[in-house]
Amino acid sequence: MFQVDGEDQLGLDEVGLSETAWERLNLSEGTEVQVTHAPAIESLASVRRRIYGNRLDSRAFTKIVQDVVAGRYTEVQLAAFLTATAALPLDENETAHLTGAMIAVGERLQWGAPVVVDKHCVGGLPGNRTTPIVVAIIAANGLVMPKTSSRAITSPAGTADTMETLAPVDLDIAALKRVVDAEGGCIAWGGAVHLSPADDIFVRVERELDVDTEGQLIASVLSKKVAAGSTHVVIDIPVGPTAKVRSEEAATHLATRITAVAARFGLTAQCLLTDGTQPVGRGIGPALEALDVLAVLQNAPDAPADLRTRAAILAGAALEIGGKAKNGEGLALALETLAEGRAWKKFEAICVAQGGMRTPPKALHVHPLAAPYAGRVIHINNRKLSRLAKLAGAPEAKAAGIHLNVRLGDEVDRGQPLLYLHAETGGALAYALDYAAGAEDIIEIDV
Amino acid sequence: MFQVDGEDQLGLDEVGLSETAWERLNLSEGTEVQVTHAPAIESLASVRRRIYGNRLDSRAFTKIVQDVVAGRYTEVQLAAFLTATAALPLDENETAHLTGAMIAVGERLQWGAPVVVDKHCVGGLPGNRTTPIVVAIIAANGLVMPKTSSRAITSPAGTADTMETLAPVDLDIAALKRVVDAEGGCIAWGGAVHLSPADDIFVRVERELDVDTEGQLIASVLSKKVAAGSTHVVIDIPVGPTAKVRSEEAATHLATRITAVAARFGLTAQCLLTDGTQPVGRGIGPALEALDVLAVLQNAPDAPADLRTRAAILAGAALEIGGKAKNGEGLALALETLAEGRAWKKFEAICVAQGGMRTPPKALHVHPLAAPYAGRVIHINNRKLSRLAKLAGAPEAKAAGIHLNVRLGDEVDRGQPLLYLHAETGGALAYALDYAAGAEDIIEIDV
Repeated sequence: MFQVDGEDQLGLDEVGLSETAWERLNLSEGTEVQVTHAPAIESLASVRRRIYGNRLDSRAFTKIVQDVVAGRYTEVQLAAFLTATAALPLDENETAHLTGAMIAVGERLQWGAPVVVDKHCVGGLPGNRTTPIVVAIIAANGLVMPKTSSRAITSPAGTADTMETLAPVDLDIAALKRVVDAEGGCIAWGGAVHLSPADDIFVRVERELDVDTEGQLIASVLSKKVAAGSTHVVIDIPVGPTAKVRSEEAATHLATRITAVAARFGLTAQCLLTDGTQPVGRGIGPALEALDVLAVLQNAPDAPADLRTRAAILAGAALEIGGKAKNGEGLALALETLAEGRAWKKFEAICVAQGGMRTPPKALHVHPLAAPYAGRVIHINNRKLSRLAKLAGAPEAKAAGIHLNVRLGDEVDRGQPLLYLHAETGGALAYALDYAAGAEDIIEIDV
Repeated sequence: MFQVDGEDQLGLDEVGLSETAWERLNLSEGTEVQVTHAPAIESLASVRRRIYGNRLDSRAFTKIVQDVVAGRYTEVQLAAFLTATAALPLDENETAHLTGAMIAVGERLQWGAPVVVDKHCVGGLPGNRTTPIVVAIIAANGLVMPKTSSRAITSPAGTADTMETLAPVDLDIAALKRVVDAEGGCIAWGGAVHLSPADDIFVRVERELDVDTEGQLIASVLSKKVAAGSTHVVIDIPVGPTAKVRSEEAATHLATRITAVAARFGLTAQCLLTDGTQPVGRGIGPALEALDVLAVLQNAPDAPADLRTRAAILAGAALEIGGKAKNGEGLALALETLAEGRAWKKFEAICVAQGGMRTPPKALHVHPLAAPYAGRVIHINNRKLSRLAKLAGAPEAKAAGIHLNVRLGDEVDRGQPLLYLHAETGGALAYALDYAAGAEDIIEIDV
């Protein structure tokens, strides 16, 4: 169909391929190939049916997720599927079908223990870094807790980002098993384990759309928990006007739905509605949050009490559903485990098993944001604080972020630092200061 | 942030750009540039609100369409917007807001005539190539009809594809004005005129999703009619089980909505519900449809009567709303214009003005599909016929497509050709034959 006039041109009986295609098809030069029209993707008919408001059955979700994981959907088609399930939310059956379909396309870890505990936070609250503390308390009490966490998607730090400033987290399945066999627990990055390959694809598009629906959230979380071989999971749902879940009504609906869908897969889930009106601890950003975690584990006198209490409540619930404490006695056992230093000892051991303990880095640039006038702190905007920390460089710059100096209800003087910005470069600091200057309602003060 | 170790590497104070960025920004090497974070796209908040079921006002649609046309939306974000407006259909107000927003971002043609006539078909019926005939009749009767048409999006031929086998259609605005000034009408490709830049973007994504909603259809059609400077438009809505509009109820809803929204922009629209149960004429594909058009215009004895009648009905309606015929007398005037050869003379003159009349090409490969047994033709599947014509090479291969030999109700003998496949290459013919072998219900015969 075209002229051949140079050695870079293809002959009439030759086919050119992209680098990716060479790799995927595993071909060598000179191989004979047959080229045909791509077969139609049948599951797209289901996506179109869903767009126009028809509910889908288990078979339809299975086909969709299989095609998604096989890489057959374009970004546009992925976006259409995710948007359609936001416009008409997935019901309980559909959520379970999607969860099951996402479990089916991934691997499933096996642990030789009758009880395998897990913990999850639906997110949206900066500094809420309870996971390393919870794992240390649980493992110190003899339960198995092979915890894998994500890196930040839209937040200034994910648990994996924070933990990485304290120990290596990039463990493959063999390393993960070794650590858990030795110490009963781990705090690893889930990305290397690929517990939910479908979720890895959906998350990318959800992030671009900034759309995160209840049904997708539940399918994402539960598919990973089931794939990780968990039998019991405690789920932290922070509720507050600028948290991800904004009303108690929405939180209760989410909790009920999670528990019901989890039960269909033999997973015992307990949801805890927690205070989401302000950040947890003082640090926001990988290293700054790690310092809060260390302070709690080491029983430092200035350790943030709110982080300590939240972690103990979550660990207490896990100890109860995991059978290590009677109902109502979990919190006391968790606090005792912290106070006696057993949690810190276990945490150190886990870090060593994961490859050696590290010291969190410090930022080159630290700059205060001062109160413009005296008064009482009446509102803290979680979303804007997160944005501020990200502009300062978190999570890519591990030392970057925010050290928060005030909490709701505090009385402040004019000029008193409300927070300190931490940045690794002057440019990032300038971005953050620029944003702070135009957003005076990040921390609201009532005169 | 990286090592510089070769002349192809960027220095610390240098920035690399893609070819597209060089062009768009109109920069030369060595220019000093400032790089900042991209500003947030505020209108995406409206898209998210729409995804979650909230209706949008005029201002929101205006901002969305402005950002779309400025190239600020990714494919994923475009897909989300289009999907959201399919899941919860646009209501009349929203359709008008979207139409207005799409008009506002484009150019608007001006004609020095009080009445400017237009014609549109919502599509879905192969071979329904009335436009060239209608324009010829209307212009022959002294009305202004500057018709721009699209190329095929998912069909085997668009009016522009068919017309291109008879004359050049790639006219810019200056050429278009010249042809219309001289002859009163034209049949040009709309792509070069960019009457609705927003629609050009939406259509690409709709095609990938194979989703085409009522609201988007109306906004697309009416934004282009208003931009073209039309005052009166006749709209052909074919109704049939395998046409785009499948029930009279849906057609009536569409017609009512079109008329109401058009009125808000001072445009008089008349919708005609037409028979959509089988293709129009004999040809499906650019050149084969052009031959049908010529036969009707030239009063050939074997000219397809259905195409002639449809074109005359549409032209008659346009002559009536345009004030050239009394109510009830338009059809007769249209048929008279054809019979007297005035339409053919006008069509020839338009072709010459557009750059010279052409002879449609003929296909190298012609192959019959024979009736497998004797009986009566009881069903013709428009969608599958279109797919068959496309596999044979239409519309890229201008001569490719289908010559249909039977109509609904015809009695056929065993072995009698139901249709002839036309293809420019043996490979395309093989694809089409392959599909035909596996889809015996393209033309159903009752024994």
